[in-house]
Amino acid sequence: MAQGRVLVVAATHGNERNAPWLLEQWRQRPELLAAAGVELALELGNPEALAANRRYIDRDLNRSFAPELLADPSRQELEVQRARQLLACFGPDGDQPCSVALDLHSTTSAMGNSLVVYGRRPADLALAAGVQARLGLPVYLHEADAAQTGFLVERWPAGLVIEVGPVPQGLLSASICRQTQLALEACLAVLAQARAGRLRLPEALWVHRHAGSVDLPRHGDGRPAAAVHPLRQHRDWRPLTPGDPLFWSADGTVIAYEPGANPAARWPVFINEAAYGEKGIALSLCQRERWGCELGWGDALAAL
Amino acid sequence: MAQGRVLVVAATHGNERNAPWLLEQWRQRPELLAAAGVELALELGNPEALAANRRYIDRDLNRSFAPELLADPSRQELEVQRARQLLACFGPDGDQPCSVALDLHSTTSAMGNSLVVYGRRPADLALAAGVQARLGLPVYLHEADAAQTGFLVERWPAGLVIEVGPVPQGLLSASICRQTQLALEACLAVLAQARAGRLRLPEALWVHRHAGSVDLPRHGDGRPAAAVHPLRQHRDWRPLTPGDPLFWSADGTVIAYEPGANPAARWPVFINEAAYGEKGIALSLCQRERWGCELGWGDALAAL
Repeated sequence: MAQGRVLVVAATHGNERNAPWLLEQWRQRPELLAAAGVELALELGNPEALAANRRYIDRDLNRSFAPELLADPSRQELEVQRARQLLACFGPDGDQPCSVALDLHSTTSAMGNSLVVYGRRPADLALAAGVQARLGLPVYLHEADAAQTGFLVERWPAGLVIEVGPVPQGLLSASICRQTQLALEACLAVLAQARAGRLRLPEALWVHRHAGSVDLPRHGDGRPAAAVHPLRQHRDWRPLTPGDPLFWSADGTVIAYEPGANPAARWPVFINEAAYGEKGIALSLCQRERWGCELGWGDALAAL
Repeated sequence: MAQGRVLVVAATHGNERNAPWLLEQWRQRPELLAAAGVELALELGNPEALAANRRYIDRDLNRSFAPELLADPSRQELEVQRARQLLACFGPDGDQPCSVALDLHSTTSAMGNSLVVYGRRPADLALAAGVQARLGLPVYLHEADAAQTGFLVERWPAGLVIEVGPVPQGLLSASICRQTQLALEACLAVLAQARAGRLRLPEALWVHRHAGSVDLPRHGDGRPAAAVHPLRQHRDWRPLTPGDPLFWSADGTVIAYEPGANPAARWPVFINEAAYGEKGIALSLCQRERWGCELGWGDALAAL
């Protein structure tokens, strides 16, 4: 594996149009992304879906990287083929091998500028901690969710998602572009510091660890019986208190938040993400945790 | 024509999902919309597009009501057929004739709760003036735009669009629903007052009269060379001053607003509406005008 090349993916979802627009600018003017001196591979995740302005054609590309799915020759959906192709080109053993994958997304939720980390790989945690120390970005740690698997960055030795919102699907927004660029520059700078042996991690990394998801109340046939309450809209990362209004019906009925089995899981994220309706997710709930940074994290990142 | 029936249309655009959700609630609980005592016909404009979560299937339904298009037997696009069907069912000479059409839309632009009026029909102006007096809603008066014709409400004796935003496409938002309901209730209340001879119009109606549209700067192949400037995003209805930042490029270049042939046309609307990219519209510009209300307006509305 060529030490150092970083894969930057835009349009993993074809209706998230800010990152692919930026990627086009970076291809035309590589100096816009050259500050950290890291060698980059810039790639559109799902060009067919981008052309169609749809999240995906056959299935969600960012749920198509599960090893058993990739290995199953009977699975020939467009996105499964594309996942195999991306790995063949840019995977750690690919033609143009990359050791780190940074996957650029946007959301209709008010996530602000944020990072999504999958699992607890030391290199990922070092990258997230370094960026959080620079920019203060919140980190959503996704793990142990059997209903959501097969994320792109999991197939590279290290990687994370930059998630910026709120922005409607299909729309170009300058402020979303600027935040995306800022977070990506920070990732590359932290990586360059680690490789140069100059990365000083903060004392701790604050994570919002995924605990579960909550769907809208629905009628028997699947139609929503209520909407996210206006007091919850755009309140991502703000903890819920028992009794807080959660859902709203057209007749004025309010359904309040009641803690589940884990009352500490009260930090909501991805509130009313347009693409998650089909996944049965109105919002996800996290537990907020402070993790002391470990020396080994930075070493793991430096080795990539 | 049965005096009095009002056609309420939701999902004229299939990815504007708040009004069709409300319409379902109203069908289940008619008392939620009964306050004004007006007889209603509740109809989905484009059920196929709603099922597909797309603005339209073949062409924009809300540009498919031009008489010459409807009369051309060679035109058989899904939306042209649907326009003919809506008129056959609910048109002024239809099976269940309606005299007024209220078309419920949402937008990714920060239009707030607003009304769109097409042309200067006295009954439309009475309805808009009555609602503006009650709720203060801004009115976008669309006329004399050869590039945008064939709007649904133009084929009924009176009618207007209720336009609420910002909300992403494909997303259910409680606050958008509440605003839609509020504006619709006001329309029905004003109509009921007019019919009862009790409508007192305000002294004047403030309109934002359409003067033209501005596209993003684009490369020769149509790709956007710049985005709407962050200082313009969500600033609908706020007048531009020469030199105001208008567009932003990824390298930091800013393109400023310069007045065109009509310097009074400096009130922007529909800033960065996601569906208007394909129409070559980054924003439209209006001239703000105060129109003294005329007695005949209320009479025209009362007669419907």
